[in-house]
Amino acid sequence: MIRLRLQLELDYLVAPPGCDFIFNIHAAHTARQVVLQEQLTLSQDVPSRVDTDPATGNRYLRLSAHAGPLRVGYSATVDLVHHKAWPAAIAETPVAQLPTPVLGYIYPSRYCQSDRLTRLATREFGQQWQGHGRVQGIRDWVLQRTAFTPNTSNANTSAMDTLVDGVGVCRDFAHLMIALCRAVNIPARFATGIDYGADPALGPTDFHAYVEAYLDGRWYIFDPSGTAIPMGFVRFGTGRDAADVAFATIFGPVQSSAPRITIEVLAGDDGRLEMPWHCAEALSTDG
Amino acid sequence: MIRLRLQLELDYLVAPPGCDFIFNIHAAHTARQVVLQEQLTLSQDVPSRVDTDPATGNRYLRLSAHAGPLRVGYSATVDLVHHKAWPAAIAETPVAQLPTPVLGYIYPSRYCQSDRLTRLATREFGQQWQGHGRVQGIRDWVLQRTAFTPNTSNANTSAMDTLVDGVGVCRDFAHLMIALCRAVNIPARFATGIDYGADPALGPTDFHAYVEAYLDGRWYIFDPSGTAIPMGFVRFGTGRDAADVAFATIFGPVQSSAPRITIEVLAGDDGRLEMPWHCAEALSTDG
Amino acid sequence: MIRLRLQLELDYLVAPPGCDFIFNIHAAHTARQVVLQEQLTLSQDVPSRVDTDPATGNRYLRLSAHAGPLRVGYSATVDLVHHKAWPAAIAETPVAQLPTPVLGYIYPSRYCQSDRLTRLATREFGQQWQGHGRVQGIRDWVLQRTAFTPNTSNANTSAMDTLVDGVGVCRDFAHLMIALCRAVNIPARFATGIDYGADPALGPTDFHAYVEAYLDGRWYIFDPSGTAIPMGFVRFGTGRDAADVAFATIFGPVQSSAPRITIEVLAGDDGRLEMPWHCAEALSTDG
Amino acid sequence: MIRLRLQLELDYLVAPPGCDFIFNIHAAHTARQVVLQEQLTLSQDVPSRVDTDPATGNRYLRLSAHAGPLRVGYSATVDLVHHKAWPAAIAETPVAQLPTPVLGYIYPSRYCQSDRLTRLATREFGQQWQGHGRVQGIRDWVLQRTAFTPNTSNANTSAMDTLVDGVGVCRDFAHLMIALCRAVNIPARFATGIDYGADPALGPTDFHAYVEAYLDGRWYIFDPSGTAIPMGFVRFGTGRDAADVAFATIFGPVQSSAPRITIEVLAGDDGRLEMPWHCAEALSTDG
Repeated sequence: MIRLRLQLELDYLVAPPGCDFIFNIHAAHTARQVVLQEQLTLSQDVPSRVDTDPATGNRYLRLSAHAGPLRVGYSATVDLVHHKAWPAAIAETPVAQLPTPVLGYIYPSRYCQSDRLTRLATREFGQQWQGHGRVQGIRDWVLQRTAFTPNTSNANTSAMDTLVDGVGVCRDFAHLMIALCRAVNIPARFATGIDYGADPALGPTDFHAYVEAYLDGRWYIFDPSGTAIPMGFVRFGTGRDAADVAFATIFGPVQSSAPRITIEVLAGDDGRLEMPWHCAEALSTDG
Repeated sequence: MIRLRLQLELDYLVAPPGCDFIFNIHAAHTARQVVLQEQLTLSQDVPSRVDTDPATGNRYLRLSAHAGPLRVGYSATVDLVHHKAWPAAIAETPVAQLPTPVLGYIYPSRYCQSDRLTRLATREFGQQWQGHGRVQGIRDWVLQRTAFTPNTSNANTSAMDTLVDGVGVCRDFAHLMIALCRAVNIPARFATGIDYGADPALGPTDFHAYVEAYLDGRWYIFDPSGTAIPMGFVRFGTGRDAADVAFATIFGPVQSSAPRITIEVLAGDDGRLEMPWHCAEALSTDG
Repeated sequence: MIRLRLQLELDYLVAPPGCDFIFNIHAAHTARQVVLQEQLTLSQDVPSRVDTDPATGNRYLRLSAHAGPLRVGYSATVDLVHHKAWPAAIAETPVAQLPTPVLGYIYPSRYCQSDRLTRLATREFGQQWQGHGRVQGIRDWVLQRTAFTPNTSNANTSAMDTLVDGVGVCRDFAHLMIALCRAVNIPARFATGIDYGADPALGPTDFHAYVEAYLDGRWYIFDPSGTAIPMGFVRFGTGRDAADVAFATIFGPVQSSAPRITIEVLAGDDGRLEMPWHCAEALSTDG
Repeated sequence: MIRLRLQLELDYLVAPPGCDFIFNIHAAHTARQVVLQEQLTLSQDVPSRVDTDPATGNRYLRLSAHAGPLRVGYSATVDLVHHKAWPAAIAETPVAQLPTPVLGYIYPSRYCQSDRLTRLATREFGQQWQGHGRVQGIRDWVLQRTAFTPNTSNANTSAMDTLVDGVGVCRDFAHLMIALCRAVNIPARFATGIDYGADPALGPTDFHAYVEAYLDGRWYIFDPSGTAIPMGFVRFGTGRDAADVAFATIFGPVQSSAPRITIEVLAGDDGRLEMPWHCAEALSTDG
């Protein structure tokens, strides 16, 4: 069990007459990601509410801010009790046995045009053993062909672009890996959160994007950009791709500044401090 | 109340060693679309099952066919008891009040890059009264700028392509209308089904694609290609766009031929034969 | 006659072992743009040469720099003796009478996908009188639908993107206008240079991109972004689109900083100072 | 020396009031492709003329047809006296030494977005010896990753699409190869013509598209789709890509049918019949 404490602060300057926000900055509640305590603070005295989407479990904070500065603070203490399994023992779930709510994750989406990549993915990955190793192979293929370079992609950049351009950030690596998985009928989804242990060379702690693939009845974590330690991921949202899980969707003109985020490891109830590390087992925090 | 009877037949030649299919050819069950009776026939003696997706209500038929010919027949008798309302009385639902499961329909998707169209949609539709009339205006805008021409688009064609090319089929009209709606924060989704009363000049009865927009707490029907009579739509599936509601998703090599579809109006229990017509009211079969 | 004096300085830091450059920063020689004097200064003692492309008249400076700082300075005094004509008197040249070297300018190019815009352009401009006014109408159409906003586009942005996104800088306005002209078979090309009289709100003097359309046997100047005074344009290069006339093409890794550019009006030989102004006549500096 | 005789017939039905055509169906005159005799026949009695573009040598037939049927026939006898060289002896021409008219062929064009492929091409081909073998390596890379399948691409399909989709016809193979060459600064251009010896499994003789790359001061022939025998190519046109060398550009509504083309080998003046074969030498018909 790993206990993490995270804090984030978002600052906006809202133009008159004010505007609506939808945030996805609450740690998800899953069977293996337990939110021990959390606190939301708003600098404006406006009503807000947090809804949980029944299909994804994502928790959406909604509020209507009035003009002026808005600061949104969120802190949480989260226990991660990972499901772990040996990769070689994890087979893919045949299409015929995929649960209905999982089906959507083999279809293409805004940034993951898996329909375009069928031939390429079949040529590269079609003959491999159908299990965790194949997904890891897709992940490695993306990592080898893509340079991690900030400010080379933007909100329009899709898996096709990243395949062609060979460059991007964590979001782009995730989109390309997802598209390739779907192209060989492996359900894959986009996950966002905060991670403990990111490469400090990449700058201050920021939101992270990674991948979950559905294998053997469960969603397993993959980190295609290779910049972080999967065991240290606190999940906020999952979706078809980045279109579904922006940390902030803003319905009007605002100025924003870079989020300020901290994350640290706390000792558990038994006083032991368990740190995230690059373990060999496959990890899941879902179900 | 309109009673329709539809029949469809799909023929495939499956290559060895066989393959999996997922069909979305069952009439949806909604509060206002009542399936009185239905029958599925398969030419192969293989197990099949029909699952309902909890998020959309779409009904998916799954089966694993063995090599050789496969015929799938489906027939149903459906009663449509439309919710009708005067367009001028239907306001948009403010973003802050959208139900959480509806939120996904304001985000971009594979074929509906609404994020790209924000400026265009705001310039064209941003100043209009926020209600049914605005959505109808978007529908008319698409219809005026797009030529209905078979075989001008393909499975890759997206709303951006249709905006640029100015040509397409019902699927393309729907994608462009959806993208423009979302670009001004109106939830919109892609609907598929069979329609009674399609323009016979367009050829034999085929699957139809149209749009549902969420207004005033309900999903209202729009027909951007203008080729059909909305009152005669029997809904099969809804989704973010065509990626989610293919009538057949096939996991292997098969040969297929054009579907054979018939639809007719039946007399209701009271013996009256009510025909679909181009009514002035807004229509919904949802909730 | 307008006499302009321009100076520009480009600074680079070349990584080992050095690299090749191709610049297009020399004022073009045309019948109506006379270069009275010019001077090139290089901070490195390396051989360089200036070639004139026979097809376009563009003058390319080539050099192989060694590692370290490189400063390229260019200054010129140029006389512009515009051909002027009343727009209402300028007809289009029928396709059948276009000179062979002009034909390439009705074909699509990297950033001007005119082939995609045939239906849109024909719907919007197909019925208009075929002359200067139609081209001006295309220019106005682009200007009305596109917001001039720095840092919204990049080196990949094409006319299709600009049509969809509705935003860009002078390069993007030019590409969209060119694509629309070609879509109705009007030859149009991309022109670059330095302009006197740019809107100072847009920042320091920079390279400018604009359009020349072939009408009545001559290339006429258009400024689709509306940010400058066409009478003050000193032309460097013309091409199919921005792919052909980058001011610098660099074959290796270098650091570069913003160009420093000045331009001023000088008195002519007769002592008179003629300033560029927004005249009503159509202008050409070609032939 | 190889002597070929080709004949082609194009049939159109021109709608009132008639329309203009530009054809590029005349065999090019080059130092090593000698047109011994040629004949053009038109079923309509309209004026026509053939112009040679000074920059490319392409020969354009222009005519204004009136409404009704139009048949264009062209036949020619052509001698090919190939320049041959051993691949291992052919180095690339350094960028600094490229002739000015060749420079345009390292820039991106409508269907060859080489600017997007810089990282990919550098990763795959950047470390190879800079000569004919590298270009052949690019050609083989494209051939291995692309399936030749008729009717999978259309007039919009670009090198980026072909890279992603992994499928296409000769035009698409050529575009992808050209884009990759330019991405590592090797000038490459699109060539069209008729070829003797095409794989009969691909159907009746048709126009062919292939690639010429500029190496060691000369344009060498490559056949990326691997469907033909380069020694049997009769060149019609060259250009930046397919946008420049359509065999017919038509300025109005017409119906057209498939071209009818024949090509045969004739005995030379010495009575010997030299057949095209897959020789090991690099070939050029230019200069």
